[in-house]
Amino acid sequence: MGLVVPLDESKKKGAARIEPLVALVSADMDLVNQIILSKAGSDVEMIPEVAQHLISSGGKRLRPMLTLAAARMSGYRGDAHVKLAASVEFMHTATLLHDDVVDESEMRRGKQTARMVWGNQASVLVGDFLLGQAFRMMVEVGSLDALDVLSAAATVIAEGEVMQLSAAKNMATTEDEYLAVIKAKTAALFSAAAEVGPIIADKGRDARAAFRSYGTNLGLAFQLIDDALDYGGNSADLGKNVGDDFHEGKITLPVVLAYRRGSEAERAFWQRTLEKGEIQDGDLEKAIGLLRSHKTIEETIERARHYGTVARDALATFPESAWKASLLEVIDFCIERAH
Amino acid sequence: MGLVVPLDESKKKGAARIEPLVALVSADMDLVNQIILSKAGSDVEMIPEVAQHLISSGGKRLRPMLTLAAARMSGYRGDAHVKLAASVEFMHTATLLHDDVVDESEMRRGKQTARMVWGNQASVLVGDFLLGQAFRMMVEVGSLDALDVLSAAATVIAEGEVMQLSAAKNMATTEDEYLAVIKAKTAALFSAAAEVGPIIADKGRDARAAFRSYGTNLGLAFQLIDDALDYGGNSADLGKNVGDDFHEGKITLPVVLAYRRGSEAERAFWQRTLEKGEIQDGDLEKAIGLLRSHKTIEETIERARHYGTVARDALATFPESAWKASLLEVIDFCIERAH
Repeated sequence: MGLVVPLDESKKKGAARIEPLVALVSADMDLVNQIILSKAGSDVEMIPEVAQHLISSGGKRLRPMLTLAAARMSGYRGDAHVKLAASVEFMHTATLLHDDVVDESEMRRGKQTARMVWGNQASVLVGDFLLGQAFRMMVEVGSLDALDVLSAAATVIAEGEVMQLSAAKNMATTEDEYLAVIKAKTAALFSAAAEVGPIIADKGRDARAAFRSYGTNLGLAFQLIDDALDYGGNSADLGKNVGDDFHEGKITLPVVLAYRRGSEAERAFWQRTLEKGEIQDGDLEKAIGLLRSHKTIEETIERARHYGTVARDALATFPESAWKASLLEVIDFCIERAH
Repeated sequence: MGLVVPLDESKKKGAARIEPLVALVSADMDLVNQIILSKAGSDVEMIPEVAQHLISSGGKRLRPMLTLAAARMSGYRGDAHVKLAASVEFMHTATLLHDDVVDESEMRRGKQTARMVWGNQASVLVGDFLLGQAFRMMVEVGSLDALDVLSAAATVIAEGEVMQLSAAKNMATTEDEYLAVIKAKTAALFSAAAEVGPIIADKGRDARAAFRSYGTNLGLAFQLIDDALDYGGNSADLGKNVGDDFHEGKITLPVVLAYRRGSEAERAFWQRTLEKGEIQDGDLEKAIGLLRSHKTIEETIERARHYGTVARDALATFPESAWKASLLEVIDFCIERAH
């Protein structure tokens, strides 16, 4: 599944824009990684195996970095942000484990998914374990406001996944319906990850709302670009794992727009491939051709830029600082991945 | 799967021993049921459907009743116990949804499982949703001690399920290994459900330890009897859903003991049926015959009595009251189901 082509030079440039944040949180992130390794442990042999598989698979840890940066930028001087950041990463990891079962995915980040190695059963249960550990760490921190925000996110994420399941294979999905799905399944955790920073720093309503808005809109931009990248993004050559969404029948924005703007024959093509799942050789290439002819990948990236601007303005009233600059650069990082 | 025979008269007698508790918590339980209905709601259509399927399927709600009774017996006069009880039931419901996926179960309590009606995907995700809602309700109550106990239980339950998965289809499982599994997957939630009662009533260490011990041992007795009932219990005729564990290759105590005490030929039988899953017509009847010849169902019930006694003594230092009497009767209820 999917064509694999090495990243091109222009992508490396975009990728570098996460470096200021990585550098600033580096010492805290070492502590997060220690906690993650220790809390993924269990006397039950299979649990650390499955957890390690995912934890060591080279994700960027963007979400816990948001928590660390938001706490520090809010003037927080303690160490509870480390546990909250680890909780956020565990929530994310649990979601990935369950998602791969729900989507019947075979590969993630170029490796076999846990369910292919240990089975669906272990993936469901180890996800439950990590979610339990995430809540235990939050409880250890003891902030009811942080618990409120993160537990609400857990519920919303699950709702988003169910919405996506209901929307799957339905070409009549509107842009608004698509947005409601990604807001719940992706942006809610970005939002909560950022908001718990000012919360443990005892900042008031305005700081919380600002970071919440930053996280939400960054998450929307991030997911829009992810969905554009799944069809090769804006670049002439195709990135890695292109076509996963196509083969899974996921209705993402590039496709929503192409369907709405397409001819009758084109709509029939989308219905055959995405609704009925009848995919033949060459269909992915044809799909990408249609997205390009209607410029819907570019428009998806344009939408991401829109949310990126909202995220940027959400932080505008804070004084300039290295923290703020690094969080603004992350917006560009998320968007420039598409080039 | 499984022979279905109506309950006999002697079972009704045992079943009546839950009535004093049901009567005492009745008003509180109405509130719990209202919260359950409201918190299982979502604008995402599939969620209330799936949740209702399980919630309305006629479980006894034993676990939330423990929370209500433990709180009231501890002198609690507020209404937070209602939310905690609903949280406990949601945690249990989420576990059932995920278990049915893990066990590939087709029937539960005489109805099709949610995964047979809506698919594994919806079962995984709605379980996640209910777990998220459970945590949100706990956070609303705001007791960090109660959150600590219940979030630890969530982790332990998942560990227990993974242990069970690892032990599945291994006839060399010892009684101690079996006990470790049921302590985690079943007794941990009974224990937490009972302990949060004295917690919100601001009782000290001793009351918490007493209710924790009562819950743990009641849970062990409950699960032992469940496992005995799965092979027909102690009664001459067979109860409902007999043979589910046998067909799923679950290694429960009646089988652990029969394997250890059996002849070489009998061990070969257990290995063929439970380890290899090669089950032919008549094998379930032969299995039950072996359990009876080694009296391992009786012994399993004997073990349940042992834990029932520990549960009883855990409450011994509390003054006599209608609450205490009802909780002691529930021990008998759990055990007498087997006759």
